Amino acid sequence: MSQRKASGDSGRATIRDVAQRAGVSVASVSRVLSGNYPVSDELRRRVMKVVRDLDYVTNAHARSLAGGGTPTVAILINNITGAAFTHVAKGVESAASLRGWLTLVGTTGDDPERELALVNLMRQQGVAAVILLGGAYDYDEYQLRMARFARSLDAADSHLVLVGRPPLEGEVPATTVDYDNEGGAYAMASHLLSAGHRRVLVLPGHAELTTAQGRLKGAQRAFEAYGVPLDPGMVRHGPYDYEHGYDAVEESLRQGAAFTAVLAGTDVVAAGAAQALRAAGLRVPEDVSVVGYDDIPLASQLTPQLTTVHVPYEEMGRAALRAVADRRESGRRRVGDADHLVLGTHVVVRQSVRPPSQ
Amino acid sequence: MSQRKASGDSGRATIRDVAQRAGVSVASVSRVLSGNYPVSDELRRRVMKVVRDLDYVTNAHARSLAGGGTPTVAILINNITGAAFTHVAKGVESAASLRGWLTLVGTTGDDPERELALVNLMRQQGVAAVILLGGAYDYDEYQLRMARFARSLDAADSHLVLVGRPPLEGEVPATTVDYDNEGGAYAMASHLLSAGHRRVLVLPGHAELTTAQGRLKGAQRAFEAYGVPLDPGMVRHGPYDYEHGYDAVEESLRQGAAFTAVLAGTDVVAAGAAQALRAAGLRVPEDVSVVGYDDIPLASQLTPQLTTVHVPYEEMGRAALRAVADRRESGRRRVGDADHLVLGTHVVVRQSVRPPSQ
Repeated sequence: MSQRKASGDSGRATIRDVAQRAGVSVASVSRVLSGNYPVSDELRRRVMKVVRDLDYVTNAHARSLAGGGTPTVAILINNITGAAFTHVAKGVESAASLRGWLTLVGTTGDDPERELALVNLMRQQGVAAVILLGGAYDYDEYQLRMARFARSLDAADSHLVLVGRPPLEGEVPATTVDYDNEGGAYAMASHLLSAGHRRVLVLPGHAELTTAQGRLKGAQRAFEAYGVPLDPGMVRHGPYDYEHGYDAVEESLRQGAAFTAVLAGTDVVAAGAAQALRAAGLRVPEDVSVVGYDDIPLASQLTPQLTTVHVPYEEMGRAALRAVADRRESGRRRVGDADHLVLGTHVVVRQSVRPPSQ
Repeated sequence: MSQRKASGDSGRATIRDVAQRAGVSVASVSRVLSGNYPVSDELRRRVMKVVRDLDYVTNAHARSLAGGGTPTVAILINNITGAAFTHVAKGVESAASLRGWLTLVGTTGDDPERELALVNLMRQQGVAAVILLGGAYDYDEYQLRMARFARSLDAADSHLVLVGRPPLEGEVPATTVDYDNEGGAYAMASHLLSAGHRRVLVLPGHAELTTAQGRLKGAQRAFEAYGVPLDPGMVRHGPYDYEHGYDAVEESLRQGAAFTAVLAGTDVVAAGAAQALRAAGLRVPEDVSVVGYDDIPLASQLTPQLTTVHVPYEEMGRAALRAVADRRESGRRRVGDADHLVLGTHVVVRQSVRPPSQ
């Protein structure tokens, strides 16, 4: 490790050490490291090699998370194994990476205390924004908590972004990037109804989750539009997981419920539902149709491939990062309509729906 | 928001404000917030409600990531949408959460510069450890880079942990939590061979990735043990994704390769392989058997459910966090054999293997 000698045995390498060893000017090193100026690939490679060799810590990184340096955005997510959320995070990261920004992901495990601790931590560290992902629980306490986060981040020159959640009530300094959740559910239910299905098992998610509320409401509107009554007994609430899909179908079959289609709240719930149908000797889609929501990669990996609602998760992540970057550039602080973005959803027709058999 | 008045309009709430409003002693608040002492649920709830109401930022959080406060561990991951890695991260988080620690996840996008920037950032922030997840590329430069990371973290009273990677060469202050990668591949290939398969398409992964090297080597050893030649033309390298599985099978079929089984390097590759077989009119497992590796949830959601190798990803994450916590408690700095942990793997038999048809 003779290379480390250049930096002295105790001290850190300086930008001058890097410039000298790379045979370029200090200004050139600075341009490469800032990431804000166009530099040739060759210069970038040469400088970064020396940076690695000397284990050089830039002042930007030393200051980083503290305002002046590399902007960093924090993404807070309930559960890191949720595929939809990780695609939003990937979108944030790809847009951040383009700008030379860093991203950090913290997980809250659906625990308000961990969420609070992480938001406070990130505020202290001076992140450019805190991006909260995923459906929210529709309690008054939630609105209050988010408003407090928004104001405390705003006061610290940071910013709160909610992705995949409805906007906050009142004048709160936060940006919302949402998708047409109810419209997607309306289109998906209409697809089943227009194929002739009348008895549909609906698994919208947890009753208190805003995402599930929107998906159920969209389905209800479609049933109304088709003049088909939606039996409340055919709606089963539960978590967005494989086990819930499996158990809800198994139990409905055991209770003798007659249905020709399953409208699942997510692709993962649909996967569980399809497996339970097959375990009961029913074929998908010949005997029972199954549809999902989200269009995560799983949807096209299942057999049959799942008809579902495409939600532009990665694009939502990119839009969230762009909103933060635009805001910083323009120095804009005003809260207005432009701070609420709603992206479109659409049905992706694959192989899991057929008209009901007689 | 009248509650905020307690903290004054400009200043932050103090621990005394919290204690007063909660009607408990300052010491009690401190015990709740430290997370290191047993406290009653009722006390915890009461204090945390006030903490939220006052938007109180603990000194621990204010100091946090800077040594004295809530220990934080950083997880660095190539790609946040990789299911295996997210399960390791989940294991780290659950073990961290038990101890009241926080975790942050950074993604490197397989870019050594971003990896460097994140390691430096985390070192500056005083994290208790940096945990690097996932297969490494087998280059000399990698060994040097990791040794530098390990030494610079060690010098900053932090620690490098490699999970799912082979240990570093020489005396390097790092902990490795690995799994019996080659043994799992040996067992999986043996399972196919003992079912009678002799012509097997092998998709181990990228040739330079340590994970893929181990999986291929395990398979080769099994073929040798069974006295079956493994045709090098039947080994196709490529990324661990669905598209590679699909394309490799499609191309092999087009070139007229005769095989009765696919030994895929991951479950996701297996999912792509199975889809390509079906697209060519072949049934799984009646015409061609398919096996995976990893045992992520996808494996049991596919039809047929995938026979695969179970890797204890969550347990590896928990073990990594425990190693860091034990190290901090004991003040241990010595590098020894105990710093290399290898967890076991085993074949999970499901429905995707049958003896070859004639």
